[in-house]
Amino acid sequence: MTDSQPAATLDEIRGLMAELPGPDLAAASAAAIREAQLTKPPGSLGRLEELTLWLAQWQGRHPPRMEHPRIAVFAGNHGVAGRGVSAYPAEVTQQMVQNFIAGGAAVNQLAALAEADLRVYELALEQPTADFTEGPAMTEEDCARAIAYGMMAVETGFDVLALGEMGIANTTSAAAVCQGLFGGSAADWVGRGTGVDDSGLERKRAAVAQGVEANAAAMTGPAGRPDPFQVLRCLGGLELAAIVGAVLAARMARTPVLLDGFTCCAAAAVLFAVDPRSLDHCVVSHRSAEAGHDRILEAIEKPPLLDFGLRLGEASGAALAVQVLKAAVACHAGMATFAEAGVSGPGA
Amino acid sequence: MTDSQPAATLDEIRGLMAELPGPDLAAASAAAIREAQLTKPPGSLGRLEELTLWLAQWQGRHPPRMEHPRIAVFAGNHGVAGRGVSAYPAEVTQQMVQNFIAGGAAVNQLAALAEADLRVYELALEQPTADFTEGPAMTEEDCARAIAYGMMAVETGFDVLALGEMGIANTTSAAAVCQGLFGGSAADWVGRGTGVDDSGLERKRAAVAQGVEANAAAMTGPAGRPDPFQVLRCLGGLELAAIVGAVLAARMARTPVLLDGFTCCAAAAVLFAVDPRSLDHCVVSHRSAEAGHDRILEAIEKPPLLDFGLRLGEASGAALAVQVLKAAVACHAGMATFAEAGVSGPGA
Repeated sequence: MTDSQPAATLDEIRGLMAELPGPDLAAASAAAIREAQLTKPPGSLGRLEELTLWLAQWQGRHPPRMEHPRIAVFAGNHGVAGRGVSAYPAEVTQQMVQNFIAGGAAVNQLAALAEADLRVYELALEQPTADFTEGPAMTEEDCARAIAYGMMAVETGFDVLALGEMGIANTTSAAAVCQGLFGGSAADWVGRGTGVDDSGLERKRAAVAQGVEANAAAMTGPAGRPDPFQVLRCLGGLELAAIVGAVLAARMARTPVLLDGFTCCAAAAVLFAVDPRSLDHCVVSHRSAEAGHDRILEAIEKPPLLDFGLRLGEASGAALAVQVLKAAVACHAGMATFAEAGVSGPGA
Repeated sequence: MTDSQPAATLDEIRGLMAELPGPDLAAASAAAIREAQLTKPPGSLGRLEELTLWLAQWQGRHPPRMEHPRIAVFAGNHGVAGRGVSAYPAEVTQQMVQNFIAGGAAVNQLAALAEADLRVYELALEQPTADFTEGPAMTEEDCARAIAYGMMAVETGFDVLALGEMGIANTTSAAAVCQGLFGGSAADWVGRGTGVDDSGLERKRAAVAQGVEANAAAMTGPAGRPDPFQVLRCLGGLELAAIVGAVLAARMARTPVLLDGFTCCAAAAVLFAVDPRSLDHCVVSHRSAEAGHDRILEAIEKPPLLDFGLRLGEASGAALAVQVLKAAVACHAGMATFAEAGVSGPGA
């Protein structure tokens, strides 16, 4: 992300949300018709069948394809890291980005296994956001620029976009965003992240509570309710804003999205709070072990796909879910029909 | 399976259970030591970390490998199919075996995706078991021969054995086995299988209740409690018996096992009822949508890995779980350590 990037305002980005394309019902219907003819009892592939329909309607084609998945990891730094809210020092964000580039992180192994294209996007790691306990984390301009950066990361030609993040202290930011969007107390949304001890957990809760209080006026919209984009600006981070942009741009590019865990879902929740339909092209890859994730899943009305107790971020759960989508499409496209296989149907 | 196969008796097979090898604790410990050095917060890969340890201790080596998975599907026919307990006619067992051979079934697509070796074993499809509502489904000799056949299907050189089955009416047989082993009523264990309607469900429950009653004396062991191998013989089927054999032989060959859904777990439960430790080398791949599966999982004390609402059988869930094991091993073997990557550890 550079300062020379084309500027957009938060209002312009908000305007895009009125024009989001809907599902391709013809593709979904073609998928349903073929699904019913495949050599298995109707519905017996459960969620795999739902995923096939979902891919068809959001890719806008039948059969859906899963040959070119992309995994995008956005990395950012947070001023609130200075409050001792993470088990790791802030320089680990940059060190882990180097690890991604060198191929040594979990997501590298998972991307290779899924034969997925992996891209890592650094959002001005040397310029952390402001400490949100003292006021807005970002200016309108910085927030809008980070969203625009995330949008530009969406290229055409990919069958799914698996999103994730890296950023020391970003579960603190994500928890604050959730409280800003959905209310409740800091304790409802704050978990141990990378593994803080009890006193770290206390500092994390205090930082979130303080951040929500310090930004209360700035986050309130005209109707007296929270303005989701202002919540993102005041309590979020650059990588969260980039994820917001990527989710929006993927919708416009007819690319279905796999969301990763707690932080990624908190970013996507900003869009849900504006318009619940804006996440219809997204599936939540997994149920994170981070304490607040269940509450986000309830708020954004998304059942998770996998439940492995992951709490790593970096798109690791989304990368695993790519394999599940591949399995769904492989069955749908490759299975024989009852007629082709000469298998008797039910009650025959 | 042929009549000329070397005979074994149920007592001889029971005798093998006293000699099952235990976990390789040195391999597990080597896995735990490496896991702690990888560039991620401790425990943040959740169940993937547990799977790595489990693979190491049951393969008896570190690092564990996942290059050569085998999927084995056992097919058998059931006399009880004549009671109208399935939505499909009995000839579908043979037709689906042909579909497996031709590559048109779900498991073929999933095996190809996982680069797994797929074998289908027919157990005398032209000779269904006897209708268990009238007496034992199998003679001692037939049951022991089917177990021995399943044992011989376990070859060395595979990193995991994913087990599944095909057999019209076999969820009826599996439900009966469960009631025989664990008690309760037929309604506790009987579900809709391939999708029977309400009257079919009634017939299924009646058949199970009748089978358990008709075989009560034959299934009771010396201590007045159910004898698990006699329950298998009286209410099970040839493919269930083969799965029992495959699970045992895999333990002796140091090959970890992925169990599929309801019917496969019911077969494995026979061994659990003899000795709970006999399934320590097994992971349950998924939580089936079949009504009684949760109750089996509770009985055999195994949390499922995936939860996709599958109810297809034919090792489809186990084949999906192969990918998860590959992911676990890929992370464990391929990730950089903190030292290699120059990433700061917690609290640094």
